[in-house]
Amino acid sequence: MAKEVIKIGMLGMGTVGSGVASIILNDSAMLQERTGMEIQLKRVLVRDVNRRRAVDLPSEAYTTAAEDILGDPSINLVLELMGGIEPARSYIAAALERGKYVVTANKDLMALHGQELLELARRHNRDIFYEASVGGGIPLIRPLKQSLLANHISRIAGIINGTTNYILTRMDQDNMTLDEALAKARSLGFAEADPSNDLEGRDAAYKLAILAGLAFHRRISLQQIHVEGIGGVTREDIHYARELGYTIKLLALGEQLPAGLGLRVHPALVPLEHPLASVLNEFNAVFVEGDAAGEVMFYGRGAGSLPTASSVLADVLEVGRCLRCPVENGVPENSHKEATVLPMDVLVSSFYLRLQVQDRPGVFAALANAFGDEQVSLGLIMQKRSEKGIAEIVLVTHDVVEERFRRALQRIMKHPAVQPGHSVFRVLS
Amino acid sequence: MAKEVIKIGMLGMGTVGSGVASIILNDSAMLQERTGMEIQLKRVLVRDVNRRRAVDLPSEAYTTAAEDILGDPSINLVLELMGGIEPARSYIAAALERGKYVVTANKDLMALHGQELLELARRHNRDIFYEASVGGGIPLIRPLKQSLLANHISRIAGIINGTTNYILTRMDQDNMTLDEALAKARSLGFAEADPSNDLEGRDAAYKLAILAGLAFHRRISLQQIHVEGIGGVTREDIHYARELGYTIKLLALGEQLPAGLGLRVHPALVPLEHPLASVLNEFNAVFVEGDAAGEVMFYGRGAGSLPTASSVLADVLEVGRCLRCPVENGVPENSHKEATVLPMDVLVSSFYLRLQVQDRPGVFAALANAFGDEQVSLGLIMQKRSEKGIAEIVLVTHDVVEERFRRALQRIMKHPAVQPGHSVFRVLS
Repeated sequence: MAKEVIKIGMLGMGTVGSGVASIILNDSAMLQERTGMEIQLKRVLVRDVNRRRAVDLPSEAYTTAAEDILGDPSINLVLELMGGIEPARSYIAAALERGKYVVTANKDLMALHGQELLELARRHNRDIFYEASVGGGIPLIRPLKQSLLANHISRIAGIINGTTNYILTRMDQDNMTLDEALAKARSLGFAEADPSNDLEGRDAAYKLAILAGLAFHRRISLQQIHVEGIGGVTREDIHYARELGYTIKLLALGEQLPAGLGLRVHPALVPLEHPLASVLNEFNAVFVEGDAAGEVMFYGRGAGSLPTASSVLADVLEVGRCLRCPVENGVPENSHKEATVLPMDVLVSSFYLRLQVQDRPGVFAALANAFGDEQVSLGLIMQKRSEKGIAEIVLVTHDVVEERFRRALQRIMKHPAVQPGHSVFRVLS
Repeated sequence: MAKEVIKIGMLGMGTVGSGVASIILNDSAMLQERTGMEIQLKRVLVRDVNRRRAVDLPSEAYTTAAEDILGDPSINLVLELMGGIEPARSYIAAALERGKYVVTANKDLMALHGQELLELARRHNRDIFYEASVGGGIPLIRPLKQSLLANHISRIAGIINGTTNYILTRMDQDNMTLDEALAKARSLGFAEADPSNDLEGRDAAYKLAILAGLAFHRRISLQQIHVEGIGGVTREDIHYARELGYTIKLLALGEQLPAGLGLRVHPALVPLEHPLASVLNEFNAVFVEGDAAGEVMFYGRGAGSLPTASSVLADVLEVGRCLRCPVENGVPENSHKEATVLPMDVLVSSFYLRLQVQDRPGVFAALANAFGDEQVSLGLIMQKRSEKGIAEIVLVTHDVVEERFRRALQRIMKHPAVQPGHSVFRVLS
């Protein structure tokens, strides 16, 4: 039985690369026994060959010249773990042009340039695998590409950023402020020095672009996604939400509507009985609704060296299967048309609103009229005892077109008795 | 670009077969666009060709002769949806011997004879796909076979029987008795006329045999699995469990221990913060712990015509990929050694115990001594006000070897003040 040998050239040896290398070295017998394939980590591109590393590769494995990998005909798989757009994109393109398969964990690259790189792969009868680019160790790409292929997916809803989910969980369970929770996240390594991509929702938007493209079989541009971060979430909102039977999560949402797709990242109230409500701390989950399978959810660690390495290696083994029979008929993602993405205004949602009003006659009637005139029906209402003549009102509407809600809100905020400042969050239905 | 044509012969056209047929007929364009493959449902084996069916296939598609399918060289995929052991096993064997791929939803067959059939597939350079045999529409087999392949899996914990999960959820949320909840399950189609395989845990054991074989890369015999059903679960236990911070689920558990595997199906207390605790009603979930990926959970509808059809079609499309390049190097499951399965006595667990005692001095001391002598440490204790001189005591122990707990319990039950009858459930850690 001829044994397949996967000869890997790895670009980058940071936390994920070290995790991958350690599994390849320490578990080579296990991998070979389970798959009939031998995996060799032949060369690794690094910036500093002399740097001391946790994983012990022979010194000749390290190089600072990408050509040592891209130009080596014995290397059949290039593993891109550098991150960033360039030179990762150029290296991946070169690898494909020279007949090598590519495995990447590069979320930014796949979100921004995935389509063109997958087309390039097709032209060279190769493929790019990117399970590790979204959701760490959670199988997401392969289930969407293969297991759920017979479904028309109507919606995906994901908690796909561990930093913000950790922060929101700590604000809820430990009554921390956002800043306190962020400091704790940093101390535990769940937040980077500059966490703005996480806090502002951009990290989640990149991942949504990748997942939604697969789920809805469309090409998606990042700028089509409406993005809001968690900066406006307060402890007060979290506690009111819980009283009303909800928790607050940063959700990445994609939905197939008759006229096109809805794509957005924003904080949202999630019913406590929804499976997504029990996804806590640094854990991630993606909830998918398909017309055949119904509701399916994938949950796990969305980041980290070993979880990401788990997904990288699953893709490496997939390449091994491809080496036995190169892909002849192209790569499914290439048949995707451009997405028609609907503006937020036309999307239907229910809304949570918290505001302060002067506690005097007629104010609530004014609110009720503003809503009624826009056909906004109210589902839940809470008014707590006022302090110093100011009452705090919390409402949850029924489903309404966003544009109508916004108009009603604008009118309400102009009312003289309504204090400036309010919180609005959409509610997951 | 040569188009691959998958010509299917389907054995059986019950609820799942009808679901599969309807997707193939109604979504053929979608499937072809997404995969580059054409799927044809050429022949269907039925008992009664004249029976009126929901799905409209041409009358010549139906046959009562299996040979019309097994002996047709143009059919490259046999879809076995009959259920039961024979003649399904013989038909699958014949299909493989004649060079056809097989897709099945047959949990009993794969649990009892999966190994030998997979070996037969290998000998003929073919494969059997059985995603639909466990967990309905939830991707389980493919993630375990492929996505998590680089992991040593230490544990799987599953809620994999929808009937019992529905019953336990209703007992918890609606304060029903088991019989009331079973009647409701029947009325909604969540329980069969004879639900004993579900209630007694055997259905879950079959599924565990399949999942554990893949997770731990071992051949597993059904008789190695310790099975207990939900017959002993009362509303009182469910309410006490909730007071203590737990819910009660029928769990299928597999764990890799130094000396071998632990394999069991039984009701267990699950901490309310555990993701499995939020799996309600007819939904299923499998929680997997791997050394690289960490904790991963797959959740969804574990049964039903369309969810099962979703998984069947995912396998059909996998066969299409195989048709382009027949499997040359054998089927991973064949390298599995026999499992060493440990007896329940040596497994470590914590235990919930509810018993009634005469409310008099010295009784609790007797309990405490019996536990202490076996090194059983107590974690939670509840004693409610007694009625008519009988007090109800609820305990949760810390982790202890089962044998020791059983000995302590035996001694306790012999104490003159302890009333006959007690509830014991293991607790998921």
